[in-house]
This record gives sequence, structure tokens and C-alpha cells, in this order.
Amino acid sequence: MHDCMQADERLQQTVLQYIAARSGKQLRPLIVLLCAQLCNPVTDKTLRAAVALEMLHNASLVHDDVVDSSDTRRGQPAVHTQWSNKVAVLTGDYMLAKVIGLVAEVRNIRILEIVSNLGRNLSSGEMLQLHFGQSMWIDEERYLRVIDQKTAQLFQACAEAGAESAGCTPRQRNALREYGRLLGLCFQIKDDIFDYSDLEELGKPTMSDLRDGKVTLPLIEALRRAPQEEAEEIRKKGERICEASVTPEEETRLLEEIKSFVLRFHGDEYAVQKMLGYKKQATEALSIFRDSSEKNSLLALLDYAINRVQ
Amino acid sequence: MHDCMQADERLQQTVLQYIAARSGKQLRPLIVLLCAQLCNPVTDKTLRAAVALEMLHNASLVHDDVVDSSDTRRGQPAVHTQWSNKVAVLTGDYMLAKVIGLVAEVRNIRILEIVSNLGRNLSSGEMLQLHFGQSMWIDEERYLRVIDQKTAQLFQACAEAGAESAGCTPRQRNALREYGRLLGLCFQIKDDIFDYSDLEELGKPTMSDLRDGKVTLPLIEALRRAPQEEAEEIRKKGERICEASVTPEEETRLLEEIKSFVLRFHGDEYAVQKMLGYKKQATEALSIFRDSSEKNSLLALLDYAINRVQ
Repeated sequence: MHDCMQADERLQQTVLQYIAARSGKQLRPLIVLLCAQLCNPVTDKTLRAAVALEMLHNASLVHDDVVDSSDTRRGQPAVHTQWSNKVAVLTGDYMLAKVIGLVAEVRNIRILEIVSNLGRNLSSGEMLQLHFGQSMWIDEERYLRVIDQKTAQLFQACAEAGAESAGCTPRQRNALREYGRLLGLCFQIKDDIFDYSDLEELGKPTMSDLRDGKVTLPLIEALRRAPQEEAEEIRKKGERICEASVTPEEETRLLEEIKSFVLRFHGDEYAVQKMLGYKKQATEALSIFRDSSEKNSLLALLDYAINRVQ
Repeated sequence: MHDCMQADERLQQTVLQYIAARSGKQLRPLIVLLCAQLCNPVTDKTLRAAVALEMLHNASLVHDDVVDSSDTRRGQPAVHTQWSNKVAVLTGDYMLAKVIGLVAEVRNIRILEIVSNLGRNLSSGEMLQLHFGQSMWIDEERYLRVIDQKTAQLFQACAEAGAESAGCTPRQRNALREYGRLLGLCFQIKDDIFDYSDLEELGKPTMSDLRDGKVTLPLIEALRRAPQEEAEEIRKKGERICEASVTPEEETRLLEEIKSFVLRFHGDEYAVQKMLGYKKQATEALSIFRDSSEKNSLLALLDYAINRVQ
């Protein structure tokens, strides 16, 4: 990873170092490694795939922060905040090109296809979210499509590429694909639940999704459960926030109202149940593997996704 | 090409159609095809490489227009103008992911490496330009490095990938790489000369590079030739334009002054001579091939690069 986050051009190098120094939890390469080792010993292909997928993830975060106008990433200024949108776009592109190079070195056509499909899905997922994710009328089905493309496909690709890199059987590949996708859904839903939690000490402030116009599962379900008139009122309030035509004080008041609406109709609890359902399916997907420390770690990752407090 | 510019997501599809309908001259796939056919009959790999490189080019233009804040492309609103920076970033990413998929289908490791190196060079070239391209102190060597990475590497990659796709010999590959690079340099220098021409009816208005803070060969050479004091004055004027702290009237006046300075010291003529030198080298690179309609077309492309009036 260290070797790959290098560039000849000085500014490019500085920006890559900045990103590398704020590397986060690196869950995705962990998934690649665990899924490979669960099938067969980790190979050189596994390591390259792990680095490639983490770089693809980081490249997409750099671009997403531009797209979402998010000023911070992992508690620090985002690349586009620290430098500019221009530098962020080009750095993301540079990293994507590195990803192609890494995947080329893996010399496995399936892994190449996994990464190519993933790249399309990630950008489509963000586009989908731009298109109707920011609507007070989004329904659960569309929400699930967005988070599937935006988050779950990346976890799925990590699991599948890991398995593939270690020469898995088709049955193992399918099981780990499924596990990865479901783990990703759990992660994203948990993130979305956080937005309605009281844990202000999280990296990101609560209600930040809605402040950015993103309507997620807890609110979607509360809107579905509430009487039509009340839902209508809340939608109007949400739209006022999204239009950004409100004063900061008014925005705070509206966000508080929407939050207590969600809690009153137990939208957050519904999301928890949904997540637990996915966890159960993910555990079942792993049942074809006999017990091992890798399998235990993958199960522990599921627990972590659901129970983490940040 | 048509089949590749598709997406499931509706907004994405609309944007891709918009780009496809403004496809430009498509010189790059032409180079791929001609260089392949010059060595051996065109294959399916050639066609995929041609589409991949044209898509990579178009993806980088979509991102470059965001980076350079250029509002128009091929005489029409750029993607980020027509929609938003967000949509432009994501569409570029989507196209880059398609490129990986296409190159994966070619199943040729050399072509994969060519495309990966190219991706890195394109973003580094833009970054280089951001970093010191926009300085009144850039010298010829750095200018050549920028245009090599930004433009010539793409032409080189087209020539090399075309040759490779048709199973060329190493000698043929090297000759065509060289031809491609030199053709690219001619193209870019001609573009830069246009900026100091009187052809206002061109797609882009003249002096637009300098207005964007880009200092190119004609001005670099004029600054080198002029007496130190006069050069100093012009640099200050150039910097005032780049700082964008001038009124439109003042900007027009300053641009006119710089233009007549360049013409007075024959900076444009120097750039023409430089370009003719590259053309001569490119012609020599092709001398290893016997006469054929493909070779004639490649030679005609050189003439076109240098003599075109737009």
C-alpha cells in the first residue's frame, strides 16, 4: 500500500501522503485477506487485490467528497477542502489509474472484471443518490438499490476478489460474495441509523445526512408508518431543509422535529431489525465453511458492523 | 462505441448520450486502427482498444473541464455546465470503469499496462499544469513535460496499443510509439499557437489559454528572447490577468499587449519551427514501413496536425 501511494509529481505525492496518513480502519483489505485465507493460503495476487480495492475505495471517497461537498473525511479536512476540487478530481483519477495497473499485475481476468463492474457500480450508485436519493419520496426499494451499489458492492467485490485470488471453488465464491454484500448492507444501514442516534461524539455530527438532503431508512420507514397528513407535513419540512433556504436556527429546529418524528414511529428500530435480518443471512452464507479462525473473524466483523458505537 | 456509451441508470444514460452526440473528430481511435493495420490486419482486440482509448480520452475531457472550469467543449456546454460538477465527476468515473472492462476483454497484458500508465500520466500532466503550468516563469523544458504527459502520451498509447493489438514486432512497436508521441506534440503545439492567431472563428476564442492562466510555448519563447526589463513587465501583466483581479476591459487590453509582444518577438514562429522539427522526426520514424495507404494516412495526419485551420 505504501509503495502504491507514490507519485513522481511533487504535489501529487504530497496529496497521496496526506491520504495515506489518514487511512481509516482498512476494513476492505481485511475482508479480501480473510476471505482468501478462508479458502486457501493467501497469495501474492491476494495482496495486490487487497491494495487495489482499498485504493479504489479511497479514490472514490476523494471524488465523493467533491460530489457531496463534504468538507471533512475521517475527522480531518477532505482533499478538496485542503487543496481544491481540481486537485481532488485529479488525485482520484491518478489513484484509479494505479488501480488498473495493480489489477493488471494480478493477471486474473475474473478479478479484473470484478474491479471494472465495481467501478461502474460505485459511480452509478452515487449518481442514483444524486438523482432520487435526495427526495423525500424515496421508498425502501430504491434506498436499498442505492446502498447496494454505493456500499454493499464494494464489500462484495472484496470478498469475491479475495476468494478468487486464492483459487476458491465456485460454491465458496458464491457464499463469500453473498456474505460480503450482506455485510456491506449492515454497515451502511448502521451508518444511517447513527444519523438518528444521540451519540454526538461520533466522527460526524448526527442528522448530517438529512442536512445534505439524504433520506435514509429510518426516516423512510417512519414516513411509511405515519398517518398521511403527518407524513406530508414532515416531507414539507424535509424539503425546506434540502432547499437550503432556511436560517441555521430554523434548520436546527426542523431537524429536531424530524428526528423526534422518526423515533416516535420507531423508524430506527425498523432499520435495526432489517440489519439483523441481513446479519442472519450472512451468517448462514458462511455455514458452508467449517470452523476456523478466519471464519470466526468474518463473523466478528458482522458483530462489529452492527454493534459498533462509531 | 455506441454499445459502450450506455448505462442502466437514467441520468447516467442521458449524460452519456449527450457526450456521444458531441463526439468530435475521433482522431485517437483512427490512430489505433491505422497503426494496427499498418502492421497486420485489424483484429477484434484492435477495435476494443480503439473504443477504450477514445472513452478514456472523453472521460479525461469531462474531468478536465471541471478542473479547468471550462464552460464549453466542442462548441457546446460542457457536462459540468449542462448538469453539475458532481454529475461530471461521476460520469467520468463511470466511463473510466467502462474502460477497465473493455481493456479486460482485450486480454492482452501489454495493452492493459499501456492504458494504466496512460491514466496516471494524464492525471499527472493536468496536476503538473495546475502546479507550475500556471506560472509566468515556466520554461520550455517544463512546458514540454506538461504537453508530453497531457497530450502526447495519449497519442503514443493509441499508436502503441494499435500496433500491439495486431501483433506487431518490437521494432514496429517502437517506431509507432515514437510516431504517436511526436504527432501528439505537433497537435498540442499547434493548439497553443492558435491561441495567438487571428482566427477568431475557431471553436475556442483566442487568448483563452492565457485567460485561464496557461502559459504556452509562443509566450515562453518571446519572454526568453525579450530584454529582461520588457519580459519582467509582461510577466507582471500576465500575473495580473491570472489573479483575475482585473476588470474585463483591462483584461482585454492586457491580453492584446501580451499578444503583440509575442508576435513582435516571433514566439509563434519559433513554435512553428519546433513543430516542424517534430514532424520531420515523426516522418523518419515511419521510414521503416514500406509504402501503403495506411502509411500515407499516418503521414497525412501529421500534415493535418500542422496545417489545420481549426
